[in-house]
Amino acid sequence: MPIKRIDHIAIVVEDIDAALNFWEDALGLEVSEIEEVKAQEAMVAFLPSGQSEVELVQPTNGASGIAKFLHKRGPGVHHICFEVDDIRETMNQLKLKGVQLINDEPTIGTGGKQIAFVHPKSTNGVLVELYELTPEEPQRRRRLIRNMQRRLARQGYAARAGLRQFIHSWRGQGARKEKASVADDLSRLN
Amino acid sequence: MPIKRIDHIAIVVEDIDAALNFWEDALGLEVSEIEEVKAQEAMVAFLPSGQSEVELVQPTNGASGIAKFLHKRGPGVHHICFEVDDIRETMNQLKLKGVQLINDEPTIGTGGKQIAFVHPKSTNGVLVELYELTPEEPQRRRRLIRNMQRRLARQGYAARAGLRQFIHSWRGQGARKEKASVADDLSRLN
Repeated sequence: MPIKRIDHIAIVVEDIDAALNFWEDALGLEVSEIEEVKAQEAMVAFLPSGQSEVELVQPTNGASGIAKFLHKRGPGVHHICFEVDDIRETMNQLKLKGVQLINDEPTIGTGGKQIAFVHPKSTNGVLVELYELTPEEPQRRRRLIRNMQRRLARQGYAARAGLRQFIHSWRGQGARKEKASVADDLSRLN
Repeated sequence: MPIKRIDHIAIVVEDIDAALNFWEDALGLEVSEIEEVKAQEAMVAFLPSGQSEVELVQPTNGASGIAKFLHKRGPGVHHICFEVDDIRETMNQLKLKGVQLINDEPTIGTGGKQIAFVHPKSTNGVLVELYELTPEEPQRRRRLIRNMQRRLARQGYAARAGLRQFIHSWRGQGARKEKASVADDLSRLN
């Protein structure tokens, strides 16, 4: 199959910490990691579920695309991402069928993975992301999680409680810093 | 884990046949089955992907909840469904955490499965469905698919092309019949 699985469902939220009151504390999913995605001007928290993940996305800049989406439509599903076997082949096939792509060529996401978006006009109103896994990405994700856990342990936190505490403290700082980058906070942790 | 996996993502569309131009012909997912869900006044097509499914939902009645959603918000993601281990336990846990449920008790969906919805107010704008698998449901789905394939074979169609042809012809009939039930068309096939 050229389409392997649903990789993640991205949900735009105003505040990751508050959103975790539902997704983690009540529903019972668990945050595996948190990252700043600079290209999207967003903080992202991943909550694995089976083969897929829920991805909570919070804008870090009021002028970003994510922030505009949030302002216009409110919190909710932003996109669905499918892992594909060969992103260029899939994109060519879509073009041949007259599907409107947002990216003409794959762009490089975090960890060097190749991604591209399909326009909601061609997909019944759903923003669809395509994603080709690179051999480096699972290693990068494992390293990120391991480093995060080590730092938290060194700071005397249990891994999960510590990650949540970090998110919580970042929320408070975020409010004070307003649009400042959160990269410093994350690099202290990673 | 009380939450086992993402079972499906439901996408409301105006016309399943037209929607398959993208989801099946271009993207490469495959319809496994099509069903009328009378309680929701909708036709539903399932397209498995990994452990999960894309579920295309088309209203069969202009006054239904699904039709109103479509009229108000246009086509797009309607809900995300998680398979849970024990739906009553999950619902109790959610209530204890102050999460607003749409159903106080699980309701019975197709095949006897137990389902319940969580209000988007509590989930950052996402309609979340919870679903507890019954032992009968996988058997029912397999039987439905097998019967559909047999009928199509008897009518001289290859299974996949035939299913699509059925959907296509149903679309034409649907337009003529307007709001009439499609149960007769499906029962001819099943």
